[in-house]
Amino acid sequence: MILRDAFYGIRRFDDFRASLGVARNILSKRLAKLVDAGIMRKELYEEHPPRYEYRLTAKGRDLVPILTAFLAWGDRWESESTPPVTLTHKDCGRVMHHEAVCSECGGSIDAFNLLLDPVPPIVQERLAERLAAKS
Amino acid sequence: MILRDAFYGIRRFDDFRASLGVARNILSKRLAKLVDAGIMRKELYEEHPPRYEYRLTAKGRDLVPILTAFLAWGDRWESESTPPVTLTHKDCGRVMHHEAVCSECGGSIDAFNLLLDPVPPIVQERLAERLAAKS
Repeated sequence: MILRDAFYGIRRFDDFRASLGVARNILSKRLAKLVDAGIMRKELYEEHPPRYEYRLTAKGRDLVPILTAFLAWGDRWESESTPPVTLTHKDCGRVMHHEAVCSECGGSIDAFNLLLDPVPPIVQERLAERLAAKS
Repeated sequence: MILRDAFYGIRRFDDFRASLGVARNILSKRLAKLVDAGIMRKELYEEHPPRYEYRLTAKGRDLVPILTAFLAWGDRWESESTPPVTLTHKDCGRVMHHEAVCSECGGSIDAFNLLLDPVPPIVQERLAERLAAKS
């Protein structure tokens, strides 16, 4: 939720707090974790008294496709229980959703057309057994 | 991790347990949660004694783009700390990564070219204040 607000442009501690309605110490810990993980950075914006803004780093901004993938999944499967959020793509001006494609050919990707490598040993064993049982 | 193994084709309780190395009661609870959420389904595959397989539902398989979005992010930002996993797209035969595009125009999406709607009230307030301060 901190990340969502950060994407909206929220940067200051009190604004995060007002938006999220969490206690100071909890928010403080969570922001520190995001800073430690390199997802947000803390920046001085006022010297007297010292005040900081929390801004997304490039690594943090790069979480956007994960968030939009979640939104797209939620729209398809949980739309009754959550209020709909729409995404507009500024480049084309249309309301859209996240589509996952192959970086090489641009084709769609799903559970049926992807292979992971390496496969964990136990998985390899079981799949080999199953193939053997079939033949 | 259960989901990752399920994508690999693991279906049986003991195989999940061998692969993940978790206690029976914990695995059992987690599988039940995934079944409750409609992400996996429990299917009888042997009657005497009754034995069940845990298989992904369509809703579960549709989590693939979220997992691949995570993998792509990890590859870009955390590749030193995690072993590299490669994804091959069966349709084109190439090693690839997840690319996020707009469903309407096929253009790339990122933190700079997306608008969310609705914006939470507190966010709207702060953005309006900031705009006013600038003008």
